[in-house]
This record gives sequence, C-alpha cells and structure tokens, in this order.
Amino acid sequence: VTTRRRRRRPGRPAGESGAREEILREARAAFASNGYDLTTIREVARRARVDPALVHHYFGTKDRLFAAAMEFPVDPAMVADIVIGPGLEGAGERLVRLFLRIWDTPENREPVLGLLRSALTNPAAARMLREFVSKALMARVAPALGGPDAELRAAVIGSHVIGLAIFRYVLEVEPLASAGEEELVAIMAPRFQDSLTGSVGVRG
Amino acid sequence: VTTRRRRRRPGRPAGESGAREEILREARAAFASNGYDLTTIREVARRARVDPALVHHYFGTKDRLFAAAMEFPVDPAMVADIVIGPGLEGAGERLVRLFLRIWDTPENREPVLGLLRSALTNPAAARMLREFVSKALMARVAPALGGPDAELRAAVIGSHVIGLAIFRYVLEVEPLASAGEEELVAIMAPRFQDSLTGSVGVRG
Repeated sequence: VTTRRRRRRPGRPAGESGAREEILREARAAFASNGYDLTTIREVARRARVDPALVHHYFGTKDRLFAAAMEFPVDPAMVADIVIGPGLEGAGERLVRLFLRIWDTPENREPVLGLLRSALTNPAAARMLREFVSKALMARVAPALGGPDAELRAAVIGSHVIGLAIFRYVLEVEPLASAGEEELVAIMAPRFQDSLTGSVGVRG
Repeated sequence: VTTRRRRRRPGRPAGESGAREEILREARAAFASNGYDLTTIREVARRARVDPALVHHYFGTKDRLFAAAMEFPVDPAMVADIVIGPGLEGAGERLVRLFLRIWDTPENREPVLGLLRSALTNPAAARMLREFVSKALMARVAPALGGPDAELRAAVIGSHVIGLAIFRYVLEVEPLASAGEEELVAIMAPRFQDSLTGSVGVRG
C-alpha cells in the first residue's frame, strides 16, 4: 500500500524466516529501549517494516513476542494456566513441578539468567524485566488469589522462585542444589501453597 | 625473623593502613582464585608478606576478612547472633528487620549485588559465594533449627532472602518494592518463622 520496503541486510536470509528474524531483532531493540509496557506490536512492526498482522501471525501476543525475542523458555500465559487454571488446590505443588521442568534444563535457564544478569547491570534492563514479571506473570496470578494482599503474596512467591533458581542453579547451594523433585515438592509446595491461599499468619 | 620483606608499590601508603590494604588486596585475589573454603589466613598473610598474626589482629576471623575484602556489609557471625541468638521465638521477625536494616541502605547492597553479578558470570565467583553462604551464614543457623531437614530449611530461607532482595531492590517489583517495614514484617516474618521452626507442612 505504501512505499515501505523491507530492508535487505548483508547475509539476511530471504523470505519468511528472514522477516521473522527481523521482527525478533527489532522487538529486542524496542523492549530494551522502551521497556515492556510501552512497546507495542504496532511499534515493532513499524521498526521491522512489516505489517502488524504479520507480527500477530508469527507471535500472537506481545507476551509471546517478548518471550520469543528474549528466548524466554515459556509462554507466560501458560504458567498461570498450568499453576492456577485447575484451581488453587494443589497449585503450590504444580508450581514446584513446573519450576523444575523449566529450570532443570540448562538451555531454558540460560536466557532467563541472561535477563537477570542484564537487570543487575543496567537499569533499563531491570525495568524491562520488572514490567514483564509484573504484567505477564504476576498480574495473571494475583487476581485468582483473592484477599487484599493478593498482589503482595504473588510478588512474595515470584521472589522465592527467582531466589530458589539462584541458590539451586547459580550458586549451587546444598542441599537445595541436589534435592530431587519429590524432596523439593515436600519442602516448597506447602510454602507456595500458603502464599497462594494466604493462610500464613492468619491461622491459630 | 626471615628475609621476607613487605613489597613497596608506587603510591602505596606507608605503615599500618598500607599493610591493611595489601592484606585486603591479597585476600580478594586468594578468595577469587581458590574459593572461600581453601583460602586461609596463613595463605593470605604469605601473599601479602606479613605475619599471620597481623591478619588476625586486623580481621580476627576468615569470615571477617572475607567480609572486609568483599565489602560485605555485615559480619556473618553477627547475622546468626542477632536472628537466632535470643532463641527461635521471634527469629522470623528479627530476620526481616535485619534484612531491611542491611538492604535498605544502597551502600550496603551494592557490594552484595556485585558478588551476585560476578556469580552469574563466573563459576569461580559462584563457588566463592556459595562456600561463603554455606559456611559463614547457613552453617551458623542450621544447627539451631533442629529437625532432619534443618539444612534444607536454612537454604530455603537464604534463597528467599536473596530473591526478596532482587525483587525489591533490583527489579523493583511492586508492591514489594515500596512496602514499608511493618508491611514486610507482616507478610514475611510468619513465612521465615515457619521455615525456622519447621512448622510448614506438618500442621493439621
């Protein structure tokens, strides 16, 4: 319709996969410079000189575009679906098992640790990761929890997940580092469950 | 006694503070290359070409030498004393308040975040931090907790402390980032307390 043209770069593969790569490259640049909240699919399309419909076609939602651009190992909507979808009962255990399924695989954790590394160095990266964690993960979980402190409890859970990941996979602190799945379920599931249902501190 | 001499470097201040700086410099090098466990006060003294008694005189223990060399904001023995010293009752709350007293001060958290940044990049730094966390912090807390899973519970607490620090001070995830002291005590103290006393998962 317009005179927009797709840029050709040296070595850029032609056709579909080239456009997809270009979208991912421009998405990374947009998220890094504008953060997660302000970046839109329309803006990424404009930068990549493609139609927004093509971005939707490849990635569906902004969450999934972010996940793909950052090589985030999981669709954030899927996390909430798996953990909270079937209801709060058993959600603590499902969270532990999902955590292990994702983090026990080195190829999955490397990109997330990369994001964390950037966040520790660079305030813009910290902001991007904060907005993603808040909007794509916590905001999907908190409403299901109920209670006036649901958001705070969701953040407490999120903070423990990232702390566990650091202790188990980065620092490799024992006995967390070599604990098996059932051992981790036994120790962590009741703790996550208490935060999910808000029972800690209110029981007799 | 021997022909050992103290090296003079350009710009090195003479006298006591020079020796102290030299010890810290050599301690950093020794901890970084050999880790926390294998580094001894004797070895640091040898590298700095001073008598081990001088290292003891300045720093007392290896923990405190490490803390000084890494600008770790607190003597690790003090953490256990403050939190566990008066007994397990109220220890969860004391841990939250100590956490805030240390981490709410930017000059305190910067060196710890620096250690974490290095650990995320460099396996030798991760090992050094792991050994320090295990030996100087957790090993002082776990024996007071009791129960067969005391070490695991101590590690679970440690992982939550570092996760909270990342969510509150690095990512600045709300509502954790702007929660006040009493709000944090209300949400975190019962959680820490449950891990300290091992009550989670065993109650009816």
